[in-house]
Amino acid sequence: MTHMDFDALVALLARIFIANGASAGVADILARNCAGAERDGAMSHGLFRMPGYVSTLHSGWVDGRAEPVVEDAGASFLRVDAANGFTQPALAAVAPIAIEKARATGACVVAIRRSHHFAALWPDVEPFAEAGLVAIAMVDSMAVVVPPGARRPVYGTNPLAFAAPREGGRIMVFDQAVSLLAHGDVQIAAREGHVLPEGAGVDAAGQPTRDAQAVLDGGALLPFGGHKGAAIAMMIEIMAAALTGGNYSHEVDWSAHPGAQTPCTGQCLILIDPARGGSGAGFAARVEQLVDALRAAGQERMPGDRRFAARAKAVRDGVPVSAEMLARLEALLTS
Amino acid sequence: MTHMDFDALVALLARIFIANGASAGVADILARNCAGAERDGAMSHGLFRMPGYVSTLHSGWVDGRAEPVVEDAGASFLRVDAANGFTQPALAAVAPIAIEKARATGACVVAIRRSHHFAALWPDVEPFAEAGLVAIAMVDSMAVVVPPGARRPVYGTNPLAFAAPREGGRIMVFDQAVSLLAHGDVQIAAREGHVLPEGAGVDAAGQPTRDAQAVLDGGALLPFGGHKGAAIAMMIEIMAAALTGGNYSHEVDWSAHPGAQTPCTGQCLILIDPARGGSGAGFAARVEQLVDALRAAGQERMPGDRRFAARAKAVRDGVPVSAEMLARLEALLTS
Repeated sequence: MTHMDFDALVALLARIFIANGASAGVADILARNCAGAERDGAMSHGLFRMPGYVSTLHSGWVDGRAEPVVEDAGASFLRVDAANGFTQPALAAVAPIAIEKARATGACVVAIRRSHHFAALWPDVEPFAEAGLVAIAMVDSMAVVVPPGARRPVYGTNPLAFAAPREGGRIMVFDQAVSLLAHGDVQIAAREGHVLPEGAGVDAAGQPTRDAQAVLDGGALLPFGGHKGAAIAMMIEIMAAALTGGNYSHEVDWSAHPGAQTPCTGQCLILIDPARGGSGAGFAARVEQLVDALRAAGQERMPGDRRFAARAKAVRDGVPVSAEMLARLEALLTS
Repeated sequence: MTHMDFDALVALLARIFIANGASAGVADILARNCAGAERDGAMSHGLFRMPGYVSTLHSGWVDGRAEPVVEDAGASFLRVDAANGFTQPALAAVAPIAIEKARATGACVVAIRRSHHFAALWPDVEPFAEAGLVAIAMVDSMAVVVPPGARRPVYGTNPLAFAAPREGGRIMVFDQAVSLLAHGDVQIAAREGHVLPEGAGVDAAGQPTRDAQAVLDGGALLPFGGHKGAAIAMMIEIMAAALTGGNYSHEVDWSAHPGAQTPCTGQCLILIDPARGGSGAGFAARVEQLVDALRAAGQERMPGDRRFAARAKAVRDGVPVSAEMLARLEALLTS
């Protein structure tokens, strides 16, 4: 296990993206995102994803050189055509304008379509909370989650992320899939032979299973919390696809692109300026009071705490990367 | 069991509200809301709530004659001081302005504070979807839900409601508590001696229980879906209290008002004009396509279907009310 300097890891990943057809701008954004997930200890969305990115670029399913087009759709509404590229460059293009609109009017909706999201969602909301805004993000993905009473998957793992400023420059952030498990976790469990928890998935015949490979081989995931989790999955389909003009999860069809792994769907982002609410400039202090109340009641860990701790450690000591992973990454430079 | 004409039921409930201290305007709004829940078959938020409304009005905890104050806080942001009255009159006061702002800019956030919500949440979002908007509403309530790892409740049952237009004037709507069960359902289970499902609650000692009365007697509810449901509960606390300037659920203190049953907190509403998104005027048709996909996969019932069916039946046949309930209601006219 070596410990890599974060910037050196970003540079390596950027070289991999460029070597496999991405533009320098797209490569830098994706490399920072992916290295950031690894740094934060979120392995399922970190270096583990690099072969999937490369394979998808090779398949022709995603455009690694896409130039997103930002469309002004109102004082509090922005559309972005990601032009069949990754979501993160589209978000980077629209973010400064979205922040400006949210500050000017109190709110801004960002509707991104024709976008590929293959990463964690919290990096998409954190910068807005750091800028003093409340942010809610929703992405649909690909049909792997079975609705209640249905015989086959319709919903994606459809992550929901939320971020809000806390006192002292800290933020409150969570990012969670509507499936009991994220798809990346099932892939890791299959690779490492771990058994899935109860209620996480069904096999190809629709029967409950704890075998990760059976879920991947024509099986499907189940939503967390039964019909309530499924309702949230439905809301996210509507917000991320119907509202944006992107694909629903069940409409993603990469059959003509063997090797493709990134869902081409849409993403919705809601930004709110909390300074306009009833707590005014005291908003962050109020959020802190909730954290205090949770701690006093016995909840020791807040959402995101584990990531922030891993981040702080990696900034100090470097990002831990195994020799095996490093060899795998270097192989992607010439793939 | 008699079948009452909806308007006659509204008139009876309005008389009860007025007889117990509400203004005519507040009485009419609350009566329509409560009779509407009964009509829609949502008994836990229907006539069953009337004694609680009356008891709370008598306690002096809520102001049945409050005049909400709407504050313009930006092109896409409205605040409302409900002035320690019920939420529904505050919402009625702000709704036309909020719709206008959402249509003018693409989005509008409504932050209501010092408001008492004792009703179902779907009636708060349905009219916006009927007006062609997407609506998300969140309310915090009173500390009855235990966070993961905590020893006592901090969160409310914190309902989340979502509504969006479908084709043909129909709407897609859901309304769900973050607790596995709504508090009203636990009250009904206790009254009728029903056993609670697994994972719904803990007793006063913090031990899991299926005894509804034990949950009410110093016990607490659990969130649906474990830590994921709890994260949504936390988001709702921040949106409905920190953003609005209202109380957190754990800050509600009615100890000086014996008989009080309505949480005095806040409510956040997000309105979005879907016509500005990538599907433009085709948004409702896109939502319909999702419904079609869910049906094709085997999900027969959509969220809200049961309510819409009960509503259609009650419009035709009247609202079923038992003789016992009618006697109870009439007693409230002179309480």
